Amino acid sequence: MAENQEEVKLLGVDGSPFVCRVKIALKFKGIEYKFVEENLANKSEDLLKYNPVYKKVPVFVHNEKPISESLVILEYIDEVWKQNPILSSDPYQKSLARFWAKFIDDKIVTSSFKAVFAVNDEKEREKNVEESTEALKILENELKGKFFGGEEINFVDIAAVFIAFWIPLVQEIADLKLFNDEKFPKLYNWSQEFLNHSVVKENLPPRDPLFAFFKSRYDALLAAASK
Amino acid sequence: MAENQEEVKLLGVDGSPFVCRVKIALKFKGIEYKFVEENLANKSEDLLKYNPVYKKVPVFVHNEKPISESLVILEYIDEVWKQNPILSSDPYQKSLARFWAKFIDDKIVTSSFKAVFAVNDEKEREKNVEESTEALKILENELKGKFFGGEEINFVDIAAVFIAFWIPLVQEIADLKLFNDEKFPKLYNWSQEFLNHSVVKENLPPRDPLFAFFKSRYDALLAAASK
Repeated sequence: MAENQEEVKLLGVDGSPFVCRVKIALKFKGIEYKFVEENLANKSEDLLKYNPVYKKVPVFVHNEKPISESLVILEYIDEVWKQNPILSSDPYQKSLARFWAKFIDDKIVTSSFKAVFAVNDEKEREKNVEESTEALKILENELKGKFFGGEEINFVDIAAVFIAFWIPLVQEIADLKLFNDEKFPKLYNWSQEFLNHSVVKENLPPRDPLFAFFKSRYDALLAAASK
Repeated sequence: MAENQEEVKLLGVDGSPFVCRVKIALKFKGIEYKFVEENLANKSEDLLKYNPVYKKVPVFVHNEKPISESLVILEYIDEVWKQNPILSSDPYQKSLARFWAKFIDDKIVTSSFKAVFAVNDEKEREKNVEESTEALKILENELKGKFFGGEEINFVDIAAVFIAFWIPLVQEIADLKLFNDEKFPKLYNWSQEFLNHSVVKENLPPRDPLFAFFKSRYDALLAAASK
């Protein structure tokens, strides 16, 4: 394998679910890379140069060629490094995986974040609780095996790290029950299997500092709303 | 080629930019298919069965296997029918095409529609005029050749049919100048080349009925707003 002679870099922050997706994929494939921790309050010149459109992380850089958008990065990684595929070689299975990963981004990520952080708008919060619940229900019914990928994790599992790790963390701050074993038993079991997968486990951010980070953000919003 | 013995169906409506993308791709590849016109006010059982999640068009059905989401469909078509590729075989070029097609969907489609149809909220309209202008500027700078695909159309060109055909149509209704040759000369030239491409030209919906459709929608919003 040539990857050790290549330059593989990931610009990111530890607490981002989108960065975490890329870390999991890289580890799953066994690719060595350099992680460059960004300070989003003071973005590096590299970040601005590599992702001038969004100026966001993750940015994946392979031999000086930058790629943004976590799902686009995952597809690239899977095409360049063939070992341990995360997408099926069958075009139909691949299209289903793309559909569900996009579904997670479009229907679950934003609504569950808003359900927690829309502190000054009870109607908006309720609307987003409903939307994320509805979407999680659809995904619950979609889960057929141990993982979305069957016996091993795939593209959809990796995209869904947001559900397994981030939703439980942020819902606790707002004392919400968006996602638990009572409401979504299959998805909850999946999340436990997934979080305990060796590759996933060692690439999750430490829980406590991340909880403190989101809690302080939540408290600041609450303080601003009550003024 | 086996495609003539296969069942290839597209469920859609004529006036949808997302359906139009799939039509262009199928024609570009020379794939025979059956177009099933949907009535969105009274959706068919097939549509509800094939796309239970969104109940939206386009749905592409290949030998009874349904796929939703226009960009996911384009990728599937490109993988199954290899002639006249719309995505490069180079993983990096492919990732750039995916990035820009997603950019069009995330940053241009919604904002330009809202710029036209937010008739009862001037602030919202202005915000969306700004957002779509900003995004079109970024895309203008990205265009290097005759087409996004170089000498021939590719995935990004097909995604951008929305810009070439739909924005000029809806902006006229609201008397806005979101996209024209003064503001975006390169992108405007591209749009003319693209709309005159033989494959594109014959797959665009007839302009007048579509204009009338959007105009009546606009007038209805306006009437509701002035009550």
